[in-house]
Amino acid sequence: MRVFNFSAGPATMPLEVLERAQSELTDWRGSGMSVMEMSHRSGEFVSIAAQAERRMRDLLSVPDDYAVLFLQGGATGQFSAVPLNLASPGAPAAYLNTGSWSAKAVAEGRKYVDVRVLADEKESNYSTVPEQGSLEVPADAAYLHYTMNETIGGVEFPYVPDAGEVPVVTDASSTILSRPLDVSRFGVIYAGAQKNLGPAGICVVVVRRDLLDRARPEVPAALDWKAMADADSMLNTPPTLAWYLVGLVLEWVEQQGGVAEMARRNQAKADLLYGAIEASDFYSNPVQPAARSWMNVPFLVPDSALEKPFVAAAAEAGLSGLAGHRSVGGMRASIYNAMPIEGVQALVDFMTDFEQQNG
Amino acid sequence: MRVFNFSAGPATMPLEVLERAQSELTDWRGSGMSVMEMSHRSGEFVSIAAQAERRMRDLLSVPDDYAVLFLQGGATGQFSAVPLNLASPGAPAAYLNTGSWSAKAVAEGRKYVDVRVLADEKESNYSTVPEQGSLEVPADAAYLHYTMNETIGGVEFPYVPDAGEVPVVTDASSTILSRPLDVSRFGVIYAGAQKNLGPAGICVVVVRRDLLDRARPEVPAALDWKAMADADSMLNTPPTLAWYLVGLVLEWVEQQGGVAEMARRNQAKADLLYGAIEASDFYSNPVQPAARSWMNVPFLVPDSALEKPFVAAAAEAGLSGLAGHRSVGGMRASIYNAMPIEGVQALVDFMTDFEQQNG
Repeated sequence: MRVFNFSAGPATMPLEVLERAQSELTDWRGSGMSVMEMSHRSGEFVSIAAQAERRMRDLLSVPDDYAVLFLQGGATGQFSAVPLNLASPGAPAAYLNTGSWSAKAVAEGRKYVDVRVLADEKESNYSTVPEQGSLEVPADAAYLHYTMNETIGGVEFPYVPDAGEVPVVTDASSTILSRPLDVSRFGVIYAGAQKNLGPAGICVVVVRRDLLDRARPEVPAALDWKAMADADSMLNTPPTLAWYLVGLVLEWVEQQGGVAEMARRNQAKADLLYGAIEASDFYSNPVQPAARSWMNVPFLVPDSALEKPFVAAAAEAGLSGLAGHRSVGGMRASIYNAMPIEGVQALVDFMTDFEQQNG
Repeated sequence: MRVFNFSAGPATMPLEVLERAQSELTDWRGSGMSVMEMSHRSGEFVSIAAQAERRMRDLLSVPDDYAVLFLQGGATGQFSAVPLNLASPGAPAAYLNTGSWSAKAVAEGRKYVDVRVLADEKESNYSTVPEQGSLEVPADAAYLHYTMNETIGGVEFPYVPDAGEVPVVTDASSTILSRPLDVSRFGVIYAGAQKNLGPAGICVVVVRRDLLDRARPEVPAALDWKAMADADSMLNTPPTLAWYLVGLVLEWVEQQGGVAEMARRNQAKADLLYGAIEASDFYSNPVQPAARSWMNVPFLVPDSALEKPFVAAAAEAGLSGLAGHRSVGGMRASIYNAMPIEGVQALVDFMTDFEQQNG
């Protein structure tokens, strides 16, 4: 029996996608082989790959002057790729620090560029994002980097920062396709797949083509956006199985009604869960309301000794993956596109029961 | 109906492995979720990952003073990782050039080190490897890099080069687990999975632990062997689905009788196919007999106009992926571990028929 899986990533996937992949796993549509056995140069796989790219472009309305890449190495690979592709050694680059993931991007960036942290939400205990309009982005910065959503802290930007002529680069790993996004506001959008797009092991990078001429010579080939764009992301053997699965997820999003419908569902799910937390004196969420994540909802109980019993009893009830990140404790429910509202309702019902027994 | 797939990689996989993965794809052993949906920090996935590592260690008899890593970025990622982890900027490093893949490793190495090509088989038209004992490896070289098997040229080293105290680094992508290997002769062995180990999107790196302190500060985190070794290859989210599939392939190799049995089968397959080529005046193989690959068998017909008809008629007969690499033309049969001898026999029978009709 399938459980409701609230894991932050790798995360739950649509059952229809898994069943489709299952049915094709030993023989893809009469080809006599699994997708994972196909040459990436074969007509079959090239069409699978191109279709995934087309769906990504359609769903996000990606303008034509942007390349869409499918790379290995995850968002962590892009923490290095961003400075290596966009900035000279030691050039200034602006970063916003709103939690664990942006701090990692900052640390990796320091290997390559002169990182200027324009806003550091450590002082707010990572409970919010910088106020809109408060940022002064240096005009000589190679780019402004920020993390659209902090998976661990449950903090999400409700706006796109304005950096003037400086290209805005964002890690959209946990928000991509969860709501509409104006791609033209960005220089680069990158996202590890394992939250809203598919399995771990593939990362989508959407990059404005005029930024493809800035790479330093020593960028590793596997992280070289220009070389990858020129080779349709097949400079070397791509992660074909993961790419195919991302394509199936994109097809599913399309069939459900696209990003607008995802946004409608995700807002309803977030309203339900945050509403239950707000209505209770037992549960709490530490994030300022305007910056609360639609995707990752951390919550606390009055006594941390109740955390383990909560997580264990929830797992017994078929609600899996609710422990908070080991660095912060508490609980966390990740409610990505593939989590149905029935799962959130089951969680809210369980929370009510747990409060009655322990409150 | 499944075909015999002679693709050079991604390549055919054992049907038993695909069927096992298929049966577990929506619910892994009662966990209520697919492996690809599991948190990489979950007990279930950590045990899947550890078991794959243990099997790799057992099958290759990896000594305890070697780390075994499961990384993203493919062998191409390791073309950069090798110099970045082992050598200072501009330090001398020795390379052997025996074909297309070693040439790519050389080109990538030149971004980071002073590449010394000790032997260049371009002059032999990549039809052999350097004679054993002919190499003079500079004592100040950071490492000696060679490609154990050239997938495109069908050239394989029948020996391990001796480099004295200089660590030997090898790209074993298309030979790993095809026959026994004395790991202790190497500093580093790396292999993209998509030939003998599983799907594309994961790369195994076996590295002697005393070499883990040589990385330069600017190695990207996703390619940082030391950081990955310290984190059990989970510095960031690993390609969990691919790792699991590699584990299933390793279990299959174990069940078949291990690497010694793979070697017996692979020798029989290679003998059968090269024997048929040798016995014919119609087919030819350009590689010197001592350096012929057990894994990738290129062959020519007397008239290149017959190549397309050969490949097309073979595909009709259920023998797929026989076109030579686009850079060299001709035909090529890749006969990795998962290709049964029945497939090679079917190919030889087809070749005989084709010769009778066209010879």
